[in-house]
Amino acid sequence: MTDLRARATAEAVGSALLLAAVVGSGIMAERLSGGNVGLALLANAIATAGVLYALIATLGPVSGAHFNPLVTLAMAFRGDLARGDVVPYVAAQVAGAVVGVLVAHGMFDMAVFQLGVKVRTGLPQWLAEAVATFGLLLVVWIASKRNAPAVPAAVAGYIAGAYWFTASTSFANPAVTLARSLTDSFAGIRPADAPGFVLAQIVGAIAAVAVARRLLR
Amino acid sequence: MTDLRARATAEAVGSALLLAAVVGSGIMAERLSGGNVGLALLANAIATAGVLYALIATLGPVSGAHFNPLVTLAMAFRGDLARGDVVPYVAAQVAGAVVGVLVAHGMFDMAVFQLGVKVRTGLPQWLAEAVATFGLLLVVWIASKRNAPAVPAAVAGYIAGAYWFTASTSFANPAVTLARSLTDSFAGIRPADAPGFVLAQIVGAIAAVAVARRLLR
Amino acid sequence: MTDLRARATAEAVGSALLLAAVVGSGIMAERLSGGNVGLALLANAIATAGVLYALIATLGPVSGAHFNPLVTLAMAFRGDLARGDVVPYVAAQVAGAVVGVLVAHGMFDMAVFQLGVKVRTGLPQWLAEAVATFGLLLVVWIASKRNAPAVPAAVAGYIAGAYWFTASTSFANPAVTLARSLTDSFAGIRPADAPGFVLAQIVGAIAAVAVARRLLR
Amino acid sequence: MTDLRARATAEAVGSALLLAAVVGSGIMAERLSGGNVGLALLANAIATAGVLYALIATLGPVSGAHFNPLVTLAMAFRGDLARGDVVPYVAAQVAGAVVGVLVAHGMFDMAVFQLGVKVRTGLPQWLAEAVATFGLLLVVWIASKRNAPAVPAAVAGYIAGAYWFTASTSFANPAVTLARSLTDSFAGIRPADAPGFVLAQIVGAIAAVAVARRLLR
Repeated sequence: MTDLRARATAEAVGSALLLAAVVGSGIMAERLSGGNVGLALLANAIATAGVLYALIATLGPVSGAHFNPLVTLAMAFRGDLARGDVVPYVAAQVAGAVVGVLVAHGMFDMAVFQLGVKVRTGLPQWLAEAVATFGLLLVVWIASKRNAPAVPAAVAGYIAGAYWFTASTSFANPAVTLARSLTDSFAGIRPADAPGFVLAQIVGAIAAVAVARRLLR
Repeated sequence: MTDLRARATAEAVGSALLLAAVVGSGIMAERLSGGNVGLALLANAIATAGVLYALIATLGPVSGAHFNPLVTLAMAFRGDLARGDVVPYVAAQVAGAVVGVLVAHGMFDMAVFQLGVKVRTGLPQWLAEAVATFGLLLVVWIASKRNAPAVPAAVAGYIAGAYWFTASTSFANPAVTLARSLTDSFAGIRPADAPGFVLAQIVGAIAAVAVARRLLR
Repeated sequence: MTDLRARATAEAVGSALLLAAVVGSGIMAERLSGGNVGLALLANAIATAGVLYALIATLGPVSGAHFNPLVTLAMAFRGDLARGDVVPYVAAQVAGAVVGVLVAHGMFDMAVFQLGVKVRTGLPQWLAEAVATFGLLLVVWIASKRNAPAVPAAVAGYIAGAYWFTASTSFANPAVTLARSLTDSFAGIRPADAPGFVLAQIVGAIAAVAVARRLLR
Repeated sequence: MTDLRARATAEAVGSALLLAAVVGSGIMAERLSGGNVGLALLANAIATAGVLYALIATLGPVSGAHFNPLVTLAMAFRGDLARGDVVPYVAAQVAGAVVGVLVAHGMFDMAVFQLGVKVRTGLPQWLAEAVATFGLLLVVWIASKRNAPAVPAAVAGYIAGAYWFTASTSFANPAVTLARSLTDSFAGIRPADAPGFVLAQIVGAIAAVAVARRLLR
């Protein structure tokens, strides 16, 4: 394992590229899909999965490729990450994710600083986020123990599916949620709705850790 | 191999997430595809394959990741599962699959309890289910013996293809069939048509086991 | 390596499932795509790739999973298949491929016996088939020597791409060409045009073997 | 490692097939997508990723499967390629890429020699190319050191995503840029805009190498 500074940089760079991919492909998809939201979400999901696979396969051996504060907390809880690494990891993820959104805006010639306006709230949306995060953490927790080489494809495949099967299109990540509140585009979310999403994600993550630990007993 | 309770729980959780994915992505696809059924089925197939890969890669090392009573019966017949595990496995699969459908309804703000109305019957549909299950069991039986690390991708790839090449969109699983009779959405089936599907699946599975055993002699 | 009868059966079963997938997904795609040929070809390509991956990963360890007379001839030429196995292999591939087309018709409630009507002829189409087969044989020849575990995904990925980048949608296989002359559906070809395709495929295969041998010297 | 002539031939053949795939699938996509640019780009991205995976998995063990002068320069800078191999590699990549474009034109019955007319210029486009190349070189540099078996899928997944998330659809390769200036089709670029793209790619590549070296310290 490399030193903390290198690992935190990997988390920042990976989170930046991930958010550039999520938000950028959403903008491109909205522009090119001629109003067909299904086609836009399909492109968005495939682009996200492709980049996610590449980033986890590449940066996994460097920092673990969490890109997600809940994954970082779960790994620290399990003892696979030093407690002192949690804050630098999460800070790097959040900073990287925000930068990625700004870069996406720059590439598509949009105002760099924006605020999300898409309403995403209500019990069904929160249930969706809890389910999305439950599945993600279950996959990460168990596969990293029992089938490590499959983690990049498992996470990418899961997220591509979760874009479609959860009614919220699966944010499943507080850093991603915060960063996506800073874009008024396909992938955006109204800042006021972000806390509800994050809370639901925390509930889903806790449930996943409880179930996963029982499955691995 | 972990204890039976943990393994049955894995089958239930995996089946629940699988059905949430199949039914949820079907609902999302129908809502977003603007009436283009082809686009809806493409999204449904890709979402199912992504989640199926993740679930088999994750839970395969725990319970075998059958999520399918016919796979469980075949593994018991081959001696790779204790006979006494069959009933708990199948019960967990059916219960999990039903819960997954209900959760999908909840996420999409629909009535939780529904009954399927889509008519799926007749000889061509039954032939399709027999072929779909034949291929699935052939892949599972042989690949688990000869190319175990490829099983998650092989099953996911096969199912994505079978959604398109079998006229029934490939249920290929009695627990899935039963659960999908409880949704009046894209992936639904009229309860009265479920027994015909299950019978055809059993025929296909028996043929697959016969052929696979000959191929591995 | 198992006995010849088992291996030839594997070639027949695999070729049947492959052709059921190619032709069946083409029929489904044409029915569901609302006249959008691009969407139909995308579904056809993804379904074919998924099934091809599954079949090669599954039957590769049994028979080599050629499903293609030109691959069988190349392997025999290289000394990786006994000369006496060529005729049984090719007979099994052709018989299996034809059965697969008939099964596809049955699943979709169409006349079982048909003849193709789609005109596929002329120099650009032949160039496309030569290029398609050149690339396929290059991948098979070199990857089977230098990166054997990647063969299923490499062949599936290549074929998915070749459906789109070769103007002929990449038959690249004489058994497939013959079988597809027996369907008047999306994947069909006029019987009179089949010999031109097969000739072009042979040219491409010979070029591939010549180049591949030089690359591996 | 095989001799230089064989390796340079591999770079030429691989680059030719890659460009035939990029340009050919773009032509097919434009013809079949009924004016829906989103559907066309989705097919173009999936076809490119499929072929790229196959080519890297196949030719990686022969020549490294760079197909990209910036990758070749980076590998030479790192000491993983002899300095004297750079010129033959780059010459083979450029020659192969150009031939691939001409072959694509031939397959689709178009004038063999063309010049691009699509305008691709301006700061956002250059930023997009810098980001696209930054991500590509980061993946190649780190994954080839830490997760070599995942390189083919990581590069293919990244490029499929980058087609969508970078506003320029991710050329990320000077040889590809030059070759695509020779086609007046979906994938084309106006020759006058090529130097700006190449300059941006060089900036992105240098940044990637700097960051990657820090991450691996």
